[in-house]
Amino acid sequence: MKITAVDTYDVRFPTSRALDGSDAMNPDPDYSAAYVVLRTGTDLDGHGFTFTIGRGNEVCRAAIEALAPMVLGQSVDDLGEFARRLTHDSQIRWLGPEKGVMHLATAALVNAAWDLAAKIAGKPVWRLLADLSADQLVDLVDWRYLSDALTPAEALDLLEMARPGHDDRIARLERDGYPAYTTSPGWLGYSDEKLVRLAKTAVADGYSQIKLKVGGDLEDDVRRMALARNAVGDDVRIAVDANQRWDVGPAIDWMTRLAPYRPWWIEEPTSPDDVLGHAAIRRALATAGPGGSRIRVATGEHVQNRIIFKQLLQADAIDVVQIDACRVAGVNENVAILLLAAKFGKPVCPHAGGVGLCELVQHLSMFDYVAVSGSLDDRVIEYVDHLHEHFVDPVVMAGGAYRLPTAPGFSAQLRPEVFAQYAYPNGTAWA
Amino acid sequence: MKITAVDTYDVRFPTSRALDGSDAMNPDPDYSAAYVVLRTGTDLDGHGFTFTIGRGNEVCRAAIEALAPMVLGQSVDDLGEFARRLTHDSQIRWLGPEKGVMHLATAALVNAAWDLAAKIAGKPVWRLLADLSADQLVDLVDWRYLSDALTPAEALDLLEMARPGHDDRIARLERDGYPAYTTSPGWLGYSDEKLVRLAKTAVADGYSQIKLKVGGDLEDDVRRMALARNAVGDDVRIAVDANQRWDVGPAIDWMTRLAPYRPWWIEEPTSPDDVLGHAAIRRALATAGPGGSRIRVATGEHVQNRIIFKQLLQADAIDVVQIDACRVAGVNENVAILLLAAKFGKPVCPHAGGVGLCELVQHLSMFDYVAVSGSLDDRVIEYVDHLHEHFVDPVVMAGGAYRLPTAPGFSAQLRPEVFAQYAYPNGTAWA
Repeated sequence: MKITAVDTYDVRFPTSRALDGSDAMNPDPDYSAAYVVLRTGTDLDGHGFTFTIGRGNEVCRAAIEALAPMVLGQSVDDLGEFARRLTHDSQIRWLGPEKGVMHLATAALVNAAWDLAAKIAGKPVWRLLADLSADQLVDLVDWRYLSDALTPAEALDLLEMARPGHDDRIARLERDGYPAYTTSPGWLGYSDEKLVRLAKTAVADGYSQIKLKVGGDLEDDVRRMALARNAVGDDVRIAVDANQRWDVGPAIDWMTRLAPYRPWWIEEPTSPDDVLGHAAIRRALATAGPGGSRIRVATGEHVQNRIIFKQLLQADAIDVVQIDACRVAGVNENVAILLLAAKFGKPVCPHAGGVGLCELVQHLSMFDYVAVSGSLDDRVIEYVDHLHEHFVDPVVMAGGAYRLPTAPGFSAQLRPEVFAQYAYPNGTAWA
Repeated sequence: MKITAVDTYDVRFPTSRALDGSDAMNPDPDYSAAYVVLRTGTDLDGHGFTFTIGRGNEVCRAAIEALAPMVLGQSVDDLGEFARRLTHDSQIRWLGPEKGVMHLATAALVNAAWDLAAKIAGKPVWRLLADLSADQLVDLVDWRYLSDALTPAEALDLLEMARPGHDDRIARLERDGYPAYTTSPGWLGYSDEKLVRLAKTAVADGYSQIKLKVGGDLEDDVRRMALARNAVGDDVRIAVDANQRWDVGPAIDWMTRLAPYRPWWIEEPTSPDDVLGHAAIRRALATAGPGGSRIRVATGEHVQNRIIFKQLLQADAIDVVQIDACRVAGVNENVAILLLAAKFGKPVCPHAGGVGLCELVQHLSMFDYVAVSGSLDDRVIEYVDHLHEHFVDPVVMAGGAYRLPTAPGFSAQLRPEVFAQYAYPNGTAWA
């Protein structure tokens, strides 16, 4: 089965109208997808997308179209080769390499190929991955620039070591799901009353962790953090997220002020490019919490590729690895990052939310638990209660956990009626 | 004077047909420009571009068009604000931030604005910059994420310290020009005979440094390096350039084999994202040359922004800072990088070649010498003898040096007849 056509779509949801998703750097996002369908001339096709927050979504679509000639006529039998072809084109590589718009576009195509391959196999993507041999998994990865931190041979060993217990872990996921945390209470644009109400709702719904956006105004953050801690009690973790708002020194000062309320992690304290900056912040916050406890450092939703993740781990700059399904080059590069995290013994807690990111990333965390890390300790997938109704196979939550997906594919397919309403600029929502 | 229209062009030169520009990662580049003209409704307009090597140039053009609404109706009176507006749009920022296609597009617009401002002032860009006060220069920079390495106050001190001798240095540039090195002999696609002939020509033309591409085949590189050293003698510096071909370990091993021929620097030994990798390579090569001499490490043409340059300097990972006129966000971000290099005491040797990069970057090095570093020690601008004939105000070389530009503007303007021939895909060269 070959790819016979590549169709692209610019889909945007006007989320800024309700301040959903507002944070210190992103006051008015319109959650959007540069969406692609790989047609095969059969009734199976592959759906994928990259996520943006509005303006510029058309540039990602143009980038997908620039890459399309490289996938036309290809099969999805060898997804390692499929992904490497896209990032190794020498002329296209100049535009990155492996970062920014071209890499977002690569993610859309690679994820669409996995959706197609999983539908052909009749399995959800997490299961397709978990059923591969260690050799096959290692062959998915582009190993260039990794060997000073992790070699293919070491990766094979890690995967073989994780083999025992494989079926037990699947059974546990079927029974309990994969634990989640929720960002729904914490958007900067929400009132104190809404914050407290949604925080209490989250606890009642079974979440053991919530997240608050910070970094707008310090006194506001101190008040909101106190309100949230009071609302959820001592046993629920509260992560905070600055969305890259600070330089290194201000990050340390600001977090020291929030420390009495026991933030579990500070996410994106500074530029996602700043490995040494994260390392300095982590050192400074190692004993900044109550009783000399650690405030953890997390980042990843804007970390451009495996090479920056490699360095964040080599420099011991983060405590939590936040993979994103669409920022790096899709499933394949995320497999590399999961292997790096396992090598360095750091938990992976994916970024999600936006539109469709929860749907995609659940597959990666389920696979990580079954076949790579083998652990749920300190691992949670972000969950935000937005826009799931637009998907054919949306995430299912129960008791603060993601239920194990069962439908074949990558849960990435938008419902057909979405396009008439949300295609930009001619959909009815934008008219 | 306001910007009343933003016109964009996709211009490509079929350089791959002669293997000009071939290296270990870029076997067949077609040097291209995503080109923009800022119209004002007067006879003055601003010309700028970003450089690519072919496929994907249309994505950069689409990115310039996505940014165009932010410059329409603006003046170029405050170029600090002009540049910051482009990188701080919250929705667009998601696509980077500050890297890849959107940042290349930002460079085109910022550089075009400088061309316009310089034409209005009746000065070449280097002179417009050199005539600004220290306060005005500091205000050009986006200081976010820099304060752990360099503060605005420190930058002011650096600039004030460089003030004495300003006029003497301009007089020296008028007399001697700015020293250059040439990459023309060293493309991987050239025969041994052509390599030797062009290396000897370079010495005869007055160059004291040449550069060879390496990283394709080790035994070929050893042979070519021996031929080049024999051709130029002991006193001419030979830099080598791997164009990101290696992992950390292989970079060290390969360069150890070339060490007997005294390479002056190894350029782009590995991924431009790998700060810690460059630091490891630099440590390993600190005494790898003959008699325990240092093989320097250089990078920058693919370094995405000031934040990665900051870390390369903080980690003491490089000996040579290779700015690029179009990779980062144009003149403004390059001013930040020049200030960082001055703070850390590292020489700046710009990347050039391609199409138009020599024309642009000469202004930045001239400004650096007059007003920032105040030094020519170990500083050379790359020169490649390609495609200059297409510019209205091309670089002028004499005795292995760039002559000081005198025409108002940024030397960025293509000749009007270029578009009919090289516009892609409808120009006559592509028909």
